[in-house]
Amino acid sequence: MPKKQVLIVGGGFGGLRVARALARARDLELTLLDRRNHHLFQPLLYQVAMAALSPAEIAYPIRTIFTHQRNIRVLLETATGVDLAARTLRTASLGALPYDYLVLACGSRHSYFGHADWEEHAPGLKSLAEATEIRRRVLTAFELAEKEPDPAAQRRLLTFVVIGGGPTGVELAGALGEISRHTLSRDFRRIDPERARVILLEAGPRILPTFTPALSDRATRDLEKIGVHVWTNTLVTAVGPGTVTLGPETLQAATVLWAAGVASSELNATLGVPLDRQGRVIVAPDCSVPGHPEVFVIGDQAHLEEQPGAPPLPGLAPVAMQQGRHVARSILADLAGEPRAPFRYRDKGQMATIGRRRAIAQLHGLEFAGFLAWLAWLVVHVYYLIGFKNRLFVMAEWTWSYLAFRRGARLIVDKDWQGAGPVRPAQPAPPPQPPAVAVSAGA
Amino acid sequence: MPKKQVLIVGGGFGGLRVARALARARDLELTLLDRRNHHLFQPLLYQVAMAALSPAEIAYPIRTIFTHQRNIRVLLETATGVDLAARTLRTASLGALPYDYLVLACGSRHSYFGHADWEEHAPGLKSLAEATEIRRRVLTAFELAEKEPDPAAQRRLLTFVVIGGGPTGVELAGALGEISRHTLSRDFRRIDPERARVILLEAGPRILPTFTPALSDRATRDLEKIGVHVWTNTLVTAVGPGTVTLGPETLQAATVLWAAGVASSELNATLGVPLDRQGRVIVAPDCSVPGHPEVFVIGDQAHLEEQPGAPPLPGLAPVAMQQGRHVARSILADLAGEPRAPFRYRDKGQMATIGRRRAIAQLHGLEFAGFLAWLAWLVVHVYYLIGFKNRLFVMAEWTWSYLAFRRGARLIVDKDWQGAGPVRPAQPAPPPQPPAVAVSAGA
Repeated sequence: MPKKQVLIVGGGFGGLRVARALARARDLELTLLDRRNHHLFQPLLYQVAMAALSPAEIAYPIRTIFTHQRNIRVLLETATGVDLAARTLRTASLGALPYDYLVLACGSRHSYFGHADWEEHAPGLKSLAEATEIRRRVLTAFELAEKEPDPAAQRRLLTFVVIGGGPTGVELAGALGEISRHTLSRDFRRIDPERARVILLEAGPRILPTFTPALSDRATRDLEKIGVHVWTNTLVTAVGPGTVTLGPETLQAATVLWAAGVASSELNATLGVPLDRQGRVIVAPDCSVPGHPEVFVIGDQAHLEEQPGAPPLPGLAPVAMQQGRHVARSILADLAGEPRAPFRYRDKGQMATIGRRRAIAQLHGLEFAGFLAWLAWLVVHVYYLIGFKNRLFVMAEWTWSYLAFRRGARLIVDKDWQGAGPVRPAQPAPPPQPPAVAVSAGA
Repeated sequence: MPKKQVLIVGGGFGGLRVARALARARDLELTLLDRRNHHLFQPLLYQVAMAALSPAEIAYPIRTIFTHQRNIRVLLETATGVDLAARTLRTASLGALPYDYLVLACGSRHSYFGHADWEEHAPGLKSLAEATEIRRRVLTAFELAEKEPDPAAQRRLLTFVVIGGGPTGVELAGALGEISRHTLSRDFRRIDPERARVILLEAGPRILPTFTPALSDRATRDLEKIGVHVWTNTLVTAVGPGTVTLGPETLQAATVLWAAGVASSELNATLGVPLDRQGRVIVAPDCSVPGHPEVFVIGDQAHLEEQPGAPPLPGLAPVAMQQGRHVARSILADLAGEPRAPFRYRDKGQMATIGRRRAIAQLHGLEFAGFLAWLAWLVVHVYYLIGFKNRLFVMAEWTWSYLAFRRGARLIVDKDWQGAGPVRPAQPAPPPQPPAVAVSAGA
């Protein structure tokens, strides 16, 4: 009997757990596809954007994770569509791949609510490339401010607006607050720290709305202590180059970051099954596509109500991880001729961090905030970071930053590789000269 | 009396030493300009390109180096020309800056010998952006090879050509040899390691021509032991997309790297003084521009013959560093009304490394090779690495790599930020659907 083919699309928290949990299934041939060659520890991505960690400290090559698992193949490949009737996955370069089981775990992407043109002015934070770009923008703003003689222009350069008061927005704003307070006064000679502003915009009545109102309040006060202005009930009506419009008001801000909207993978539209308003696939209790028990959708890409009418499970790493293990168990149950169980989410709580030593946490029914919550946040995040070496290095990097109050990765790497070439004068070129060339060992 | 203005262009090995050595001169106001915000430890840049180290481990923000030196200002700025008569430096965004002393320490850039179009197909290694681009190309070639069914096409993907047999070319080729031997067999399922080829091309009769013939021989044998083909007396006549032409022969190689030619900064042409064939400024014995004792040129940008007719000093970090300190001493001598001394290079030798545990070294008249030379190379390079934390992390990273035989930073980060956005199907788009959008806490 030929081995059954399991295709897994996405090497995030969900996809990895499916593949890991099927490691001993000798009757299965697994293939994991991802557009990128690395698994990303997304909860710490804001630290790369804020120059506290390096990309390699929160990302790990997917291929290396499976070095010792022989029943899996890893491919750098983009999935472009699913043909449910033919049981094939369409791909960008390998054509249609047949499957016996398909697991979609592609996560989510930014949504600018129909204003795709805002992205250029207000990048979001989903990939290492975006984190590096945000870091480049933030550090360049400080560098330009240092040489700007005009106070109004300097103020514009030192204004940072974060749109969206969820965990990512709060983490970005908190880090920006600390950078402008501590880094500015020490390393720059002509910047007036009083002029730096960090503004966090939230359309709803409070930030971090998935937490209790008491913890939201606490987070707001903690942000204000490190100099972040929190503006709730504030609707962004336009984003332009260096401007954010709030109805009648317009903010002048050189750096604007987007942490507001999320939409599901575009792959879902190719399935031809019912989707929710965010474009997520409405899945059966066992995470399969209704009518297609051989196709599973998990994590941010799925809409699963544990009870009919209850709010769908949130887009959190623990949900994706538990669903991944559950899908693996369902596939093994099929092979053994046993019935599948419905998925049950074991809610372990949620946390959000605010700067260098403050956080809020709701864990197992307990609420806490401050330094203790921050320590809990630290332990949980380092514990789940893939790879022993990465855990060790991130701990070392954080200890160093904490003691020395420095940021370890404050590098501006040119956006465009071609532009990083030889020195090219920006003013009119000098009179032509014969090409000046050296032959130093080589062709 | 107003303080004298010292402008330093370039935050490399030379420029930093000038600024450091003038830290206690209270009568001077220093300004250091650099196009990038970081000092780069260039001798280890190939390790970033080969995914062994992260950018932050070999680069350090220039501004942070001078946190505690109060007589200096650091500016992210591009110098575009010098007006020797008016004693001003032209800049891209700050206009003309007046100076009492000017130090040019801009280093060198790639030269493609008049074939600027080769750069796109064969990137060189001077900046972090270029190192990241080379890493992306190398890792992507392996990923594409893994899913390539055609043996000829797979062979092309697994052929790596390095042009130029100087230290950088040898280091790149050695690392590529090890990656294809060790990484391939473990992490990839369908790549036949026998098919991988690494070819080092050198136009001259031997690689590493600045070393003794015996050490060149040893380096060639060491490279061959790790699977690198060394082709000397081989002239490259054309570089195209995936091809390298050697007279009548053409190599099919997906990855071609350039380590062959170097030319001096384009700033030199604006000085209107005699330059050598590489475009370097021919300087007086005290490193100043003849007739302009207030202008110094050091490092790769300068042509200095210690005795008339002797070969000029090589483009090495120790030369730039010693010249930097010498320039500072000359400026202090001027202020004290004392005569300047001519520059004398204290040659401490040279080293080149070949892979994970081999190197060749010529130090203080001694020649040695193998593991001992590699240990010496390691100690010297870690010792000179700026910043205690970087030294510590690089040591830890290397120890880890050495024990685990892994590469720590095997990440492919998208070249173009915009391209790293939402998933976009590469095949014809699915039928239009209403935009799927979520409002997760925010505007």
